[in-house]
Amino acid sequence: MIFTIQNALVPVESGYAVVDVRIEDHSIAAIAPNLEPAGTLINGNNKLLLPGFINAHTHSSELWQRGIIPPYPLELWLAELYDFTPLNPEQIYLSALATAVETLLSGGTCIVDHLVLIPGQEEETIAAAVRGYREIGIRAFVGPLIQDASLTASIPSGGKSRDHQPYIRTTEDTLALMERVIDRFHCPEEGIHIMLAPTGMQLCSDALFEGCIALSDRYQLCCHTHLLETRAQQLLAQEKYGYSAVQHLKHLGFLTPRTSLAHCVWLDDADVAILAETRSTVVHNPLSNLRLGSGIAPILKYRQAGVNVTFGCDGASSNDGQDLLEVIKVGTLLHNVTDIDYRHWITPRQAIEMASLGGATGLNLADQIGSLTVGKRADLVLYDLTNLSLLPRTDPVGLLVTGRPTGVVAQVWVNGQTLVSEGTVQTIDVNQLRQELFDRSTWQSNRQSKMVPQVEAHYRAVMQLPND
Amino acid sequence: MIFTIQNALVPVESGYAVVDVRIEDHSIAAIAPNLEPAGTLINGNNKLLLPGFINAHTHSSELWQRGIIPPYPLELWLAELYDFTPLNPEQIYLSALATAVETLLSGGTCIVDHLVLIPGQEEETIAAAVRGYREIGIRAFVGPLIQDASLTASIPSGGKSRDHQPYIRTTEDTLALMERVIDRFHCPEEGIHIMLAPTGMQLCSDALFEGCIALSDRYQLCCHTHLLETRAQQLLAQEKYGYSAVQHLKHLGFLTPRTSLAHCVWLDDADVAILAETRSTVVHNPLSNLRLGSGIAPILKYRQAGVNVTFGCDGASSNDGQDLLEVIKVGTLLHNVTDIDYRHWITPRQAIEMASLGGATGLNLADQIGSLTVGKRADLVLYDLTNLSLLPRTDPVGLLVTGRPTGVVAQVWVNGQTLVSEGTVQTIDVNQLRQELFDRSTWQSNRQSKMVPQVEAHYRAVMQLPND
Repeated sequence: MIFTIQNALVPVESGYAVVDVRIEDHSIAAIAPNLEPAGTLINGNNKLLLPGFINAHTHSSELWQRGIIPPYPLELWLAELYDFTPLNPEQIYLSALATAVETLLSGGTCIVDHLVLIPGQEEETIAAAVRGYREIGIRAFVGPLIQDASLTASIPSGGKSRDHQPYIRTTEDTLALMERVIDRFHCPEEGIHIMLAPTGMQLCSDALFEGCIALSDRYQLCCHTHLLETRAQQLLAQEKYGYSAVQHLKHLGFLTPRTSLAHCVWLDDADVAILAETRSTVVHNPLSNLRLGSGIAPILKYRQAGVNVTFGCDGASSNDGQDLLEVIKVGTLLHNVTDIDYRHWITPRQAIEMASLGGATGLNLADQIGSLTVGKRADLVLYDLTNLSLLPRTDPVGLLVTGRPTGVVAQVWVNGQTLVSEGTVQTIDVNQLRQELFDRSTWQSNRQSKMVPQVEAHYRAVMQLPND
Repeated sequence: MIFTIQNALVPVESGYAVVDVRIEDHSIAAIAPNLEPAGTLINGNNKLLLPGFINAHTHSSELWQRGIIPPYPLELWLAELYDFTPLNPEQIYLSALATAVETLLSGGTCIVDHLVLIPGQEEETIAAAVRGYREIGIRAFVGPLIQDASLTASIPSGGKSRDHQPYIRTTEDTLALMERVIDRFHCPEEGIHIMLAPTGMQLCSDALFEGCIALSDRYQLCCHTHLLETRAQQLLAQEKYGYSAVQHLKHLGFLTPRTSLAHCVWLDDADVAILAETRSTVVHNPLSNLRLGSGIAPILKYRQAGVNVTFGCDGASSNDGQDLLEVIKVGTLLHNVTDIDYRHWITPRQAIEMASLGGATGLNLADQIGSLTVGKRADLVLYDLTNLSLLPRTDPVGLLVTGRPTGVVAQVWVNGQTLVSEGTVQTIDVNQLRQELFDRSTWQSNRQSKMVPQVEAHYRAVMQLPND
C-alpha cells in the first residue's frame, strides 16, 4: 500500500507549510514539499492535514440513551442509565459503529471505549464492540467496565448505615473474565487493544484494582478508570480511605505512564503532584462534566504541573454526542474563566497536540501515533478548508478549534487504510446503520426510571440539598 | 401563499404530537392533526417542527477575523479586532450573508446584528448588511454600534491619569446619523428593524444613551447594548459612576421591556432585581464569555428572579462560529456547575423556549413570533430526525439541545417564505458566497496587532496581573 497526499497544509513552528506526505506500509514514509509522486495520489489542495485525534474516554452503548436522561448529577443519572441499559449484543455492535462514525467524522482515529458489559453476556458484549471497530477500521482500546460493588455503594453514606446488594459477580470471576478477554481479543497489531478498566474507586475494591495491575503488568496493557468525577466521590473517598483517592491509587500502584484517568475534577494540589510524578494521563471530558454538573476540572493547573492531558467525549448520554471537535473546543475555552491571566490559557495549537499526542501518550503509543512524524503509523485526517464553516481563510488550526466546523472532515486514514473519503465513511454502510438505529428505537419523552426515586432522597440528604 | 406541513412532530405539554400546520399569508393559520391539505404540501414525516430561534446578539463583520485572534480577554481582543477590522462595504455584505447562512442552518430565523460601522462609510455599512439580510430573507434587527469615546477609555484607569484620543464623531452627529438610518432602513413589515445600540457604558456618554432613549421613544424602536461583560467593565463602572452600571442605566431610563442586554456577567443581586423590575432581556453569549474568559453569567439566578433570558452567538471572532444549536447547548449545560441543586438546571424544553419566545420577547415581538401559535408569523424550522446525529430515536428536543446535531435543518421559513429546503439555502448561492470569502482572504497565523502592545501593560497593571 503506497499513496501520496499532495500539497496539504500542515502546521509547522513558523506557521504553515505546504507539503506532500508519502504513506508506505501503513506508516508515514516521507514528509516534504514536492515529493516524487508514488502510488495513489490524494489531492491535498486547500486542505489541512493533522494527526488523528483520540477520543480518550467514552462508553459506546450510551448512544442508545442520548438525549433522554434528565438534567441529573452523575449519581442519579447513572441510576436512570442502568435502568434502561441495552441488553442485546447487536445493539452494542450498532452503537460501537455509530460512536466510531461520529469520532471519525470529527477528526478522531482512535477510541477508548470503557464498555458497559451486559450481565451474563460479558464476552458477547466485547465481541460485538470489537466486531464493530474491526469492520469500520478505527483504532480501538476496549476497556470492559468492571466493578465489584453495586451501584448504590457509589453514593456516600453520610454516616448512615446502608445495605447494598452484593454485586452480580465476584472479584475473582471478574479477573478471570478479564484474562479470557485479553487472550481472546487483545490484538494490537490489528488495532484492537484491551485495557484494564475498573470503573472507579467508588465501586471497586482494592483487590480488584490489584488484580488489574497484575494483569496489566503481565500483559503490558494500559489501565483506565474514572477518578474523582464528582463531589460525592470525593466525600466517598474520605469515608472509604480517610484520605484522597489519588493517594490511595498511588499506594496500590495503579498510577503509571500507561494509566489514563477520566475526569479528575475534584483533585487537590497534592493529588496533582502525584499525577505529575507518576506520569499518569488526565482525560478531560468537558461536556460531560458540564452536563452532569460535576464541575470544571482544573486543567490549567494540570498543564502547569506537567501532567499530560487529553480529551474524551464521554458516553453519548452525558454529552450527548460524540463530536471530538466540539469537545476540544469546549475543553479548551472553558478554562479561560478559571484563570484571569490569559497567558495560561490553552492555545488552539496546544489543544490539537493534547488531542493527538496527548492521547497517544496516555495509551503508551506516543512512539507510534499522535503526530505527523516519519516512521509513525498513518492515522491521519484531512480537513476541507473550503467548507463555509472554515471561511474566510484565517488561521486553519484556530478555525478548527475555536470555530464550529461542520462536515469538514474530507479524508481519514487509520494505519494507512482509507476509512473516510470525500466526507463519507467507506468501510461500512452508514445509511444502513441509520436505518437500524431508527428501527430499533422510538421517540419518547416520559419514561420513568425505577431506581432514581430509590436513591434520590438519600442523595439529596448526603449532598445537603433540601428534600421536600 | 398557502402551504401545509403534514405529519410533523411538535412538542406538546404531555410529550409530542403529530400535527399538520397550515400557513397562509405569511402566518400560521391552523395547527391540528389531519388538516384538509391546502396549497403546497410539505412532508413533515420523521421531522420535528419548532419556532425559529433568535441569534439575539452578534456582530456579523467579525466573521472576517474568526479563528485568528489569540486567547485574549475582551479588552486586548478588541484592540486586535479593531486593528484588522474590514473597511469595505462589500465585505460587510458578504459577512452578513455568511452569518445569516450559519444562523439559518442551525435553527435561527432572526438575527440581531450589533453592526460595527466603517468610519466615514457608516450608512454604506448599514446598507450593505441590510442588502444581505433582504436578499437571504432572514428577519434582521440591525443595531449600528455607536459610541462617543475611543477604545482605550474602556479600560479602567486604576487611578492613573490617562489621555484618550477624542472619538471620530461627536455625540450629536452620531444621533443625527441614527435618525437618518432609522428613516432610511427601518422597515419592520419587510423584516428589517433598526435598533438603538450604544456599544456600552464603557464607551458611551450619558448624552448618547439619552439621545438613544429619545429616538427609541419617538420611533418605538428596541434598544440594545453590551452590559458588564468583564470584570474590567465592573471596575470601570465604579470609577465612572461610583455605583453599579445597571443602576445607572436604570436612572437614565434605558432599561425597558424592549431593551436587550448582551452578556450581563458581572451583576450583583441588586442589579438582577433591577433587570426583573424593568423587564429587560438578558442575551447570554456563553461561548464568547468562555473564549474571552469573561466569566459565567449567573443565568440560573436570572431565571429564578424572573428575568427573561435568551441566547446569542456573539460575533464570529469571539465564538468563533455562528451555530445557534451549539450556543444553546453550551449556554444550557454550562450553568449546571454553578448550582449543586439539579432541580434548578435548565431543561432542553426550557432552552428552546428561551431561544425562541425569549428572544422574541426581548425584541418586543412576542405577539408575532417565537412559538407555534395560530396567528403568529411563519418563522419555522423543520429538523430531520433521521440524521445520524439525532439517532437512535429518544427525546427529539433533548437530542437537539444536548446532542451535537450536524446538518439536521431540513427546511426553514421566515414570514412564510422558504429560505432553506432539503438542507440547502434557496435564496442565495452559497457556493458563490464561499468562493467570494475564499478569494478575499488568505491563510495566516502570524499577523501582528499594533494596538495590543500599546494597551497590554496598562491592562495587566489594572487587572493586577504580573508584567514582566
